[in-house]
Amino acid sequence: MATIRVPDEVPSPAQDSETLNQAFRGWGTDEKAIIRVLGKRNESQRKRIRESYREIYGKDLIDVLTSELSGDFMKAVVLWTYDPAERDARLANNVLNGKKKSIDKLKIIIEISCTTSPNHLIAVRKAYCSLFDLSLEEHIASSVPFPLAKLLVTLATSFRYDKEMVDTEVATIEAGMIREAITTKQLGHDHVLYILGTRSIYQLRATFVAYKQSYGNTLDKDVDGCPGDAELKSLLQMVILCIDFPEKHFAKVVSDSIEGFGTDEDSLTRAIVMRAEIDLMKARGEYFNMYNTSMDNAIIGDVSGDYKDFLLTLLGSNI
Amino acid sequence: MATIRVPDEVPSPAQDSETLNQAFRGWGTDEKAIIRVLGKRNESQRKRIRESYREIYGKDLIDVLTSELSGDFMKAVVLWTYDPAERDARLANNVLNGKKKSIDKLKIIIEISCTTSPNHLIAVRKAYCSLFDLSLEEHIASSVPFPLAKLLVTLATSFRYDKEMVDTEVATIEAGMIREAITTKQLGHDHVLYILGTRSIYQLRATFVAYKQSYGNTLDKDVDGCPGDAELKSLLQMVILCIDFPEKHFAKVVSDSIEGFGTDEDSLTRAIVMRAEIDLMKARGEYFNMYNTSMDNAIIGDVSGDYKDFLLTLLGSNI
Repeated sequence: MATIRVPDEVPSPAQDSETLNQAFRGWGTDEKAIIRVLGKRNESQRKRIRESYREIYGKDLIDVLTSELSGDFMKAVVLWTYDPAERDARLANNVLNGKKKSIDKLKIIIEISCTTSPNHLIAVRKAYCSLFDLSLEEHIASSVPFPLAKLLVTLATSFRYDKEMVDTEVATIEAGMIREAITTKQLGHDHVLYILGTRSIYQLRATFVAYKQSYGNTLDKDVDGCPGDAELKSLLQMVILCIDFPEKHFAKVVSDSIEGFGTDEDSLTRAIVMRAEIDLMKARGEYFNMYNTSMDNAIIGDVSGDYKDFLLTLLGSNI
Repeated sequence: MATIRVPDEVPSPAQDSETLNQAFRGWGTDEKAIIRVLGKRNESQRKRIRESYREIYGKDLIDVLTSELSGDFMKAVVLWTYDPAERDARLANNVLNGKKKSIDKLKIIIEISCTTSPNHLIAVRKAYCSLFDLSLEEHIASSVPFPLAKLLVTLATSFRYDKEMVDTEVATIEAGMIREAITTKQLGHDHVLYILGTRSIYQLRATFVAYKQSYGNTLDKDVDGCPGDAELKSLLQMVILCIDFPEKHFAKVVSDSIEGFGTDEDSLTRAIVMRAEIDLMKARGEYFNMYNTSMDNAIIGDVSGDYKDFLLTLLGSNI
């Protein structure tokens, strides 16, 4: 369930564009107005505002936001204003263009591949080709070391069947195949990659259940205990979590980003922006279960100013 | 270039539907009328006829064609009447449902993956999920033995960048990576699969040129001479041909299907139907270059009746 709150009566895209343009005028910028407009519009409404803004003022709203705003607030508003497929293509491209592709960065590609709909993932790949003159999968294969690249390409190129239909016999057989890879210490075995990379989310959840029933531990725990490439292991554990409980994954991203000294604003922004229209309500519930405190309070205690107000608006607060 | 000939003045879909319905009426069927209508309409016109037929007569045109016609003629007309994405999804599904998945059958999946546009391949995968309640890639991964499955999944899930942009430096480097796999007798090396499976058609053609420049032989010849899994080798050679010269590949399919004693009508039909609106004119030219006889004459000498007339109509003859 989404958290953003669209008002009962929404101004026309032209009116919203005018409000935004007013907010940009003069010496200062009216950040509150920007939050009030963009933070309370859904995907298609934002899209129409961006189109309308270009028509009326001859400028791309993204460019104007980038030049008028700054810091984490700017980054969050811009990310929110992109079309979601373009946004995710850009997030993936930032990862793949980076000189140091840490495991934490590569995980963003898993997030995009495993927690969004099959049609969205196709749209991301189309946007990737249009924006960057190469395909997402060739960029992964040519810039990430193997066997990590293999896992990421398989996930990123999937178009999973998306109906809630499960074959429990297949689930048991494939749980057994994964088990064999674990007992023979071959976590990167093709069977593991192709089961996780091609089966439907519902089928995989049944496979995880069958695994626990047959072998006692959760698959995540056994992957963790299996000797082998630590990076591959870490990515596989994230794949399992993203498929099984995407809302828990995003609750964890939020918590990790604000935990300890300093804040990882990019991760915090990404989690809130990516899920505000999907399942942020559930992630907020999971957050409370997992960390015994509310996500909203954790954010309030960790960030400030317009950036904080914008995130809370996406979380459904009436700032 | 396409071979089919759409008349200058095309009847409305409703008129075409009526002509077809007339052809089905009574004891006999007017096959000539069916050839005259469906054989001379392009993809979108056939789509509108199928829609219009359903509206007017409450039946799926495909079902009526299946019951009114028979043999290879029926199979050809039905294949031609399907939406191309649905047609290719059905062709792939027949292969994957077959108990014996011979290399010749698996090659159909390579044809669909490597000789059609990236957007068409996505449409095939969407049709596959809708029609068969599983994804094309999970069907491949769960029913074809590895490492063949790995190659086929990588090809079938690609969304290649489709602009004519080439990086010659990358071409030289990747020609070298493929060369290394060949000299170390590892044809199934991930580098080979992922280069062939993710790079754009134009980039790969440049890689094939760079390969020949650097190492003397064509890549096809060196793959042929490399020891290893004969089936994988055969599939890889077909991938190279389909990417480099799809029209030569289809000329070869036509020739193989009519060569010697007996005819492989399914392959002949598939090649003509799949390419009649794409590059059959070029394939016809290649056929003449390769076999010193015209494709039309070869077909006339090998098949007969309405089936022959229908194929020749798709080849542009005025039957």
